Amino acid sequence: MLLARVIGNIVATQKNQRYEGTRVMLCRQITPSGEDLEYTCIALDSVNSGEGDIVVIVQEGWSASTASTGKAGAAIDSAIVGVVDYIDLLPNEK
Amino acid sequence: MLLARVIGNIVATQKNQRYEGTRVMLCRQITPSGEDLEYTCIALDSVNSGEGDIVVIVQEGWSASTASTGKAGAAIDSAIVGVVDYIDLLPNEK
Amino acid sequence: MLLARVIGNIVATQKNQRYEGTRVMLCRQITPSGEDLEYTCIALDSVNSGEGDIVVIVQEGWSASTASTGKAGAAIDSAIVGVVDYIDLLPNEK
Amino acid sequence: MLLARVIGNIVATQKNQRYEGTRVMLCRQITPSGEDLEYTCIALDSVNSGEGDIVVIVQEGWSASTASTGKAGAAIDSAIVGVVDYIDLLPNEK
Amino acid sequence: MLLARVIGNIVATQKNQRYEGTRVMLCRQITPSGEDLEYTCIALDSVNSGEGDIVVIVQEGWSASTASTGKAGAAIDSAIVGVVDYIDLLPNEK
Repeated sequence: MLLARVIGNIVATQKNQRYEGTRVMLCRQITPSGEDLEYTCIALDSVNSGEGDIVVIVQEGWSASTASTGKAGAAIDSAIVGVVDYIDLLPNEK
Repeated sequence: MLLARVIGNIVATQKNQRYEGTRVMLCRQITPSGEDLEYTCIALDSVNSGEGDIVVIVQEGWSASTASTGKAGAAIDSAIVGVVDYIDLLPNEK
Repeated sequence: MLLARVIGNIVATQKNQRYEGTRVMLCRQITPSGEDLEYTCIALDSVNSGEGDIVVIVQEGWSASTASTGKAGAAIDSAIVGVVDYIDLLPNEK
Repeated sequence: MLLARVIGNIVATQKNQRYEGTRVMLCRQITPSGEDLEYTCIALDSVNSGEGDIVVIVQEGWSASTASTGKAGAAIDSAIVGVVDYIDLLPNEK
Repeated sequence: MLLARVIGNIVATQKNQRYEGTRVMLCRQITPSGEDLEYTCIALDSVNSGEGDIVVIVQEGWSASTASTGKAGAAIDSAIVGVVDYIDLLPNEK
């Protein structure tokens, strides 16, 4: 799981049917002390997060089936699973 | 999931039988603002994408079985699951 | 699996219901000889670890279902599975 | 999936029994235009590839069980799933 | 799968019960020609490997359940699955 900030969202009308009705968010990874990192990723929202929120992203690596083969299950590899209230960090860490 | 642009496709006649009839696309990762990144990957097409399209790629990490052992399921780790219409990005983000 | 030190924890009230009651720890990867690395990640605690502990983290890549789709299972990709007592390292390694 | 060239193979007599009879190939990742990259990996062959071949490698991240616990399934994370005939690349890409 | 050398092992008494009786090895990734790389990882031993051995490591990304939730299955992401006898490398490769 990684720490990130929601920086936008993506609109895709021509998409796999399993994504109908989901919100596809664009996120930038941040350090525990809130600094921006280079890494950005796309994640589905599961907790009603908004742009600018600090969130926890799960990178799942699992799906009940692949989008390409049309078997059951959803091809998702990243999801926002929490909106962060605050981070309790040890002194001297960043 | 990552953001990428379709830059080509790959022809492989000698391949695992599970890939028969699928289109194997070559994609380059891009930033949310559309700049090219170094990373390229190969992904199966599931949304009828074309060369030059901006797409969303799922990196699945799951397959019902391994290609090597001949068990049921397809060994796929990346699939194009959406063609991007536009990206709604917060100001000051890139 | 990777070696890390617990450097903090994260509080998120607005989160996926599967995480209720779990402790979400912030960890920094370290070298076998104990030096800090840049990489930090978020991991659920399964062994009652505390801040400052050297721990073993599993990065799973599997979940019984995705958080976004509401199917059964938990979307977890990292968990602390052991607190390290000591590391037996070959000479000349670091 | 990534693009690679087969650069060798590995002989290991003392190995997990699930690998009996499989060919373990050493591969180097290449760019779409055929240049060598730093990354090398080990992959099981499923399409009768030979040394020097340009191949498509799946990095699966799935196995029906872990090798360590002796449960059913094979612990494989990479397999060669196709031998590339040619790559159709957009102009100005590399 | 990656090529590595066993450089030590880790002792952790306070650990998830699924790891009881397993050996947790510390490994350093190497190039096909045997040079050390920066990357180190922790892997469970499944082939009775010893310190100093050149080994093949599977990075699985699958576990029947997560350690944190206490469901069935083992949270393991890396296992040593073979001890390398020799590497047959094409000329001009390293």
